Amino acid sequence: MHILILGAAGMVGRKLTERLLREGRLGNRDIGRMTLHDVVEPARPADAKIPLKVIASDFAEPGAAATLIAERPDVIFLLASIVSGEAEADFDKGYRINLDGTRYMIDAIRTAGGGYKPRLVFTSSIAVFGAPFPEKIGDEFFHTPLTSYGTQKSICELLINDYTRRGFFDGISIRLPTICVRPGKPNKAASGFFSNILREPLAGEEAILPVSEDVRHWHASPRSAVGFLIHAGTMDLNTMGARRNVSMPGLSATVGEQIAALDRVAGKNVVARIKRVPDPTIIGIVAGWPRDFAMERALKLGFTTAEKTFDDIIRIHIEDELGGKFAA
Amino acid sequence: MHILILGAAGMVGRKLTERLLREGRLGNRDIGRMTLHDVVEPARPADAKIPLKVIASDFAEPGAAATLIAERPDVIFLLASIVSGEAEADFDKGYRINLDGTRYMIDAIRTAGGGYKPRLVFTSSIAVFGAPFPEKIGDEFFHTPLTSYGTQKSICELLINDYTRRGFFDGISIRLPTICVRPGKPNKAASGFFSNILREPLAGEEAILPVSEDVRHWHASPRSAVGFLIHAGTMDLNTMGARRNVSMPGLSATVGEQIAALDRVAGKNVVARIKRVPDPTIIGIVAGWPRDFAMERALKLGFTTAEKTFDDIIRIHIEDELGGKFAA
Repeated sequence: MHILILGAAGMVGRKLTERLLREGRLGNRDIGRMTLHDVVEPARPADAKIPLKVIASDFAEPGAAATLIAERPDVIFLLASIVSGEAEADFDKGYRINLDGTRYMIDAIRTAGGGYKPRLVFTSSIAVFGAPFPEKIGDEFFHTPLTSYGTQKSICELLINDYTRRGFFDGISIRLPTICVRPGKPNKAASGFFSNILREPLAGEEAILPVSEDVRHWHASPRSAVGFLIHAGTMDLNTMGARRNVSMPGLSATVGEQIAALDRVAGKNVVARIKRVPDPTIIGIVAGWPRDFAMERALKLGFTTAEKTFDDIIRIHIEDELGGKFAA
Repeated sequence: MHILILGAAGMVGRKLTERLLREGRLGNRDIGRMTLHDVVEPARPADAKIPLKVIASDFAEPGAAATLIAERPDVIFLLASIVSGEAEADFDKGYRINLDGTRYMIDAIRTAGGGYKPRLVFTSSIAVFGAPFPEKIGDEFFHTPLTSYGTQKSICELLINDYTRRGFFDGISIRLPTICVRPGKPNKAASGFFSNILREPLAGEEAILPVSEDVRHWHASPRSAVGFLIHAGTMDLNTMGARRNVSMPGLSATVGEQIAALDRVAGKNVVARIKRVPDPTIIGIVAGWPRDFAMERALKLGFTTAEKTFDDIIRIHIEDELGGKFAA
């Protein structure tokens, strides 16, 4: 089979690529080749045993999408997206990439002809929900985005449901929790601190905690995110009926619980590297974010996390990113 | 003030135009002029005391929207839309008019410049909801369209919420119930019979009832629909917060209750003109339609119907369409 990954240069895209190359199969089918796409050329993994094609293009340019599906990939992972902060700061760019880009892609599939009907896995986000909402957001809570990013993701979910219903492809939209621990350097995203306060201390660096310890949020490890994508790429989607959009499972934890887990896994010295510097702007933004989710539907559909506790989330980071060691 | 009506040649558009011309004001502001737009030239009402401009164009053509707002209307009623059946039969046309057309319009407003920030009233539909749903659909039930039309309306609601949040205009999307009694000739819309079984017998004609009498549906009179639009065009929308989409109030009635009301208002001879001819296709389509709605939010926001009972709905039709007389 042929797999196309859009957004392959991003964090989740890279990890998905690595796992698919390592396993050589998706579900019970061997992977014959893969196409990796992003707006910047994705790194070509070393020692890949599967034929790889690497493409850099702007998929929101008319015509680009048709090129990407010219070789009729069987499964398409559509991870490409402008992040929340950028979609809010640059209105035109956000709509162009997150809405028009997705639409060019699904219309290219729709009009490809020859009975082409791939699996399409789209990464949506819990940003489709905005306050006020219940402490635990249910599987039938309505689209209430409070950002342009969340609006764009909501719209893409609706499009993918409709295009699937019309038989143009076999689609699913999965809403990822906030990924924690996010590897890489600290960034200025308002959500960055959820990872920074774990990743930086484990690397021997100080990290800033800008909110109080009672802030609760919804997390999943990068390993879980890749697992969700693989399951979405292989499961029988007909079990979902017409509602092909679903919130993924995760772990609800307060910042205090995150820090307690870090203490258990890595010890006091590591925890001591967290500096408390309240930031009223970030406190305000985070106050409007989801804290917890009912996940009955996702579990029933067979989606599972790689972690049972927040301690596991930290251990997964140490295993997958730090070669099993941290700065004690 | 200057009012622009898009879709002015349609049934609701004509009735809204008539009422605005009759009253000469919207809320507490005098109407200085009106622009009536549709894809076919709307009829120019006789004896209009307000300066009227009539425009025929395809608002889904690039550039058309900018022309329509060139004179900076203060209130825009966006009623223009391809109906459900046509949007399902012609995929491209449905998305072009119902999604792209709306988007051209809201982007024209967004980029108009000079601090232009009109009121935008968008007619959405209960087609944003698809089965399975509760017997009574609540104000926080999620978008679950099962038609391309319902998908397009859902998407426009989300866009109008986001554009409003960003400050580009002051928008609201109101979800109209099925309009009953719909004036005019019988049409082939699956929902047509809800009106046909009242309108045709009142005009001395036979009508076909294709479903059983226990089919329940959600109705409002044309007079109510115009009332909702006027309220949406004048109320303080800030009371809605960021959620500018709301289901309108209506009356939930079974077909049996509709017929009983016809009997009370017009008598046995009229009712006898209804012929029962079950149609499995229509029975199947109607089974997936909303039956009843919680309307707490709409009532709290000041939306009210012109009718208290289904008898009133029939009386309104006799008053507004038949000059007070029917074929007994």
